[in-house]
Amino acid sequence: MKKILIQLDGDAQASVFDRVVAVDAGAEEIFSHCGVKPEQVEALVHGAIFTRHPNDLKDTAIFVGGSDAALGEEILAAALKAMLPKFGLRVSILLDPNGANTTAAAAVLAARKHLDLKRTNALVLGGTGPVGQRVVRLLAREGAQVRVGSRHVGRAQAVCLKIESLVPNAQLEAVCTDSSVDLAGALHEQTLVVAAGAAGINLLPLDVRLACVKLKVAIDLNAVPPVGIEGVEPTDKAKEREDMIVYGALGVGGTKMKIHRAAVARLFESNDQTLDAEEVYGIGLALK
Amino acid sequence: MKKILIQLDGDAQASVFDRVVAVDAGAEEIFSHCGVKPEQVEALVHGAIFTRHPNDLKDTAIFVGGSDAALGEEILAAALKAMLPKFGLRVSILLDPNGANTTAAAAVLAARKHLDLKRTNALVLGGTGPVGQRVVRLLAREGAQVRVGSRHVGRAQAVCLKIESLVPNAQLEAVCTDSSVDLAGALHEQTLVVAAGAAGINLLPLDVRLACVKLKVAIDLNAVPPVGIEGVEPTDKAKEREDMIVYGALGVGGTKMKIHRAAVARLFESNDQTLDAEEVYGIGLALK
Amino acid sequence: MKKILIQLDGDAQASVFDRVVAVDAGAEEIFSHCGVKPEQVEALVHGAIFTRHPNDLKDTAIFVGGSDAALGEEILAAALKAMLPKFGLRVSILLDPNGANTTAAAAVLAARKHLDLKRTNALVLGGTGPVGQRVVRLLAREGAQVRVGSRHVGRAQAVCLKIESLVPNAQLEAVCTDSSVDLAGALHEQTLVVAAGAAGINLLPLDVRLACVKLKVAIDLNAVPPVGIEGVEPTDKAKEREDMIVYGALGVGGTKMKIHRAAVARLFESNDQTLDAEEVYGIGLALK
Repeated sequence: MKKILIQLDGDAQASVFDRVVAVDAGAEEIFSHCGVKPEQVEALVHGAIFTRHPNDLKDTAIFVGGSDAALGEEILAAALKAMLPKFGLRVSILLDPNGANTTAAAAVLAARKHLDLKRTNALVLGGTGPVGQRVVRLLAREGAQVRVGSRHVGRAQAVCLKIESLVPNAQLEAVCTDSSVDLAGALHEQTLVVAAGAAGINLLPLDVRLACVKLKVAIDLNAVPPVGIEGVEPTDKAKEREDMIVYGALGVGGTKMKIHRAAVARLFESNDQTLDAEEVYGIGLALK
Repeated sequence: MKKILIQLDGDAQASVFDRVVAVDAGAEEIFSHCGVKPEQVEALVHGAIFTRHPNDLKDTAIFVGGSDAALGEEILAAALKAMLPKFGLRVSILLDPNGANTTAAAAVLAARKHLDLKRTNALVLGGTGPVGQRVVRLLAREGAQVRVGSRHVGRAQAVCLKIESLVPNAQLEAVCTDSSVDLAGALHEQTLVVAAGAAGINLLPLDVRLACVKLKVAIDLNAVPPVGIEGVEPTDKAKEREDMIVYGALGVGGTKMKIHRAAVARLFESNDQTLDAEEVYGIGLALK
Repeated sequence: MKKILIQLDGDAQASVFDRVVAVDAGAEEIFSHCGVKPEQVEALVHGAIFTRHPNDLKDTAIFVGGSDAALGEEILAAALKAMLPKFGLRVSILLDPNGANTTAAAAVLAARKHLDLKRTNALVLGGTGPVGQRVVRLLAREGAQVRVGSRHVGRAQAVCLKIESLVPNAQLEAVCTDSSVDLAGALHEQTLVVAAGAAGINLLPLDVRLACVKLKVAIDLNAVPPVGIEGVEPTDKAKEREDMIVYGALGVGGTKMKIHRAAVARLFESNDQTLDAEEVYGIGLALK
């Protein structure tokens, strides 16, 4: 039985990035679907679950990608709804639109090398975006106290409510990061800052960062200049700068790629997996 | 030479079902084209026939699928027109939009296990749809007397004319099946009933069926509740119920899948085949 | 590492022709993208260059096809712009929209078998089209004196200017070929004529050709009747007709296919190649 990966991508062109990773992770046949709409998913999933014996369904799997994370979540939900697990008729599925799950996992794994996350106070800048929300969620599960930063505190509050429903013991706080003063207040006493905002926006000026004496680790997930955390180079990887450990997007990228490949390979181990943020993070932990 | 299957599918997303079956049938490279329009077919077929030596064209083939059987037939016609058999420049082609040919073949093969088709009086409900027409055609070729049932007798008459032009000795009769009274009349004296209507429509109430004392075999090709023949379960496979042999859609499905795989594999045996209803049925007969 | 070829095609359906050739040339995974727009290319190229170690990028390559040569050139330009050669982050790329580069190379190679190109006076009919421009360019590089024929002499002049900027020592002349009188004048003293016009247009009547006593080689690249050079059959290959050596489109086609396959195979030898007209011609020369 050949290993078939069905790539469901909402973009006009299916991601070359995701498909190359799938090839290198061992998928033998990749069905790349672009422009996927949630209402098309049922027929695609039925094509996956009705064509092989249930014992062979571990060799068919689904990857949900695309640049729009919200659409990816809708596609995931439609796919799970179309499966018939009662009859053993389901296939494993990995969600990673825009690399959100693999990037968030790699960022938290980087922080974990230098900090005891249970005793960490973290600020996540761009905490309401797809990557940011997943960083918050993973840090909260690890027991960290997490501030969710956004220019619009209302949005940050909505994200806190959503994550509290997923992570019962989460210790979250919504903070406004609109001005330098807000930002300095939000960062005060924090030991970790992660910038997960949109590409090309400086979320944390150098002077504000240096003024925060307790800060130990700064991780910037934006590779496009200007970077998200001023003074961090994209290639920084556990680099010491100004008495902090810093990571740039490319510094985190190697781990992200390893997790991405391992998650695709994991899909073919059984037909009953749904790999979202926590499961992808777990795969990253097991790589050590 | 790698075995290349070119999937021509008129739907917005190419069928995952057809592509998985193609992989499992041994196609080594599958070119999946979705949203195919008849006017695009010539260039696609020329790409198939002008790229390999005629002696190697048996390793390139075309599968015409999609959910719209009429469009599939247009695509098939355009593909055949674009080939140049005089110069040995053609490739084999299989028509199976919506699984119509493989499903019809599996249904008639199921009936054939229990009945001498030459002496069979059959009623095909939903006989004007893509699957129904093919069931009528195959039964007629086997020498059965066939009633083509439709709520609109005019449509049934048109189908009879069409099939009579394909099968010279066909013994066909158009019947109206709009009311229970019509239905009881149409079913009277029949030994076989096949329901090939649209999904989710009960075409034959239980009391009407039980009132037909000569009926020996009932085959329902609709898996979506409510089933097409009341009292038949989708998983029924040569099951005895109320003194009849009954089949549900999933009961016929195993044979359908075997025929589908065998038909794709057959494509690569020579470059001169056109596999439509009769040829697909022949492949099913040879599987025994 | 599997050899991945990313097919970027601007047409509504990606070329089956190009994909079959890619399979037969040894590409192991082909990512076929249709309807490609220049603004989508950056993300696709980034997916190619950011997924494998620079040392492994020779196993990822790009093929730019489609029926619109101008769009293909835009896609090529966008792809080259998106690469990061400074960091070793690039992949090799082959341009061959509508087979323009491989066809032009095969035509000039055919002429070269019978003529010393340095001493050749050539007329290229349809010299402003994608194939014609490339024939002119390759002949000019080989040292031939080339007349660029067009019904609109202004267009021919524009092509001369463009090619002179690419080939500094080019000896070019724009000629009008609108009437038989013009054509006879343009052909006078020429030893080679190549017809590279649109399909189904007779560019050179038989009497005009026969009136040109110095003409030694006539190559017609149009296979669709009526042919571009009257009296030449599509299958002619170094055929003697009326004291000339003539080639039809199919007579040139065998060499074109060999060059096409060799060019795709060449892509996977290193990650730093851009294969346009001259490079493709060089590959053809090396085939001897």
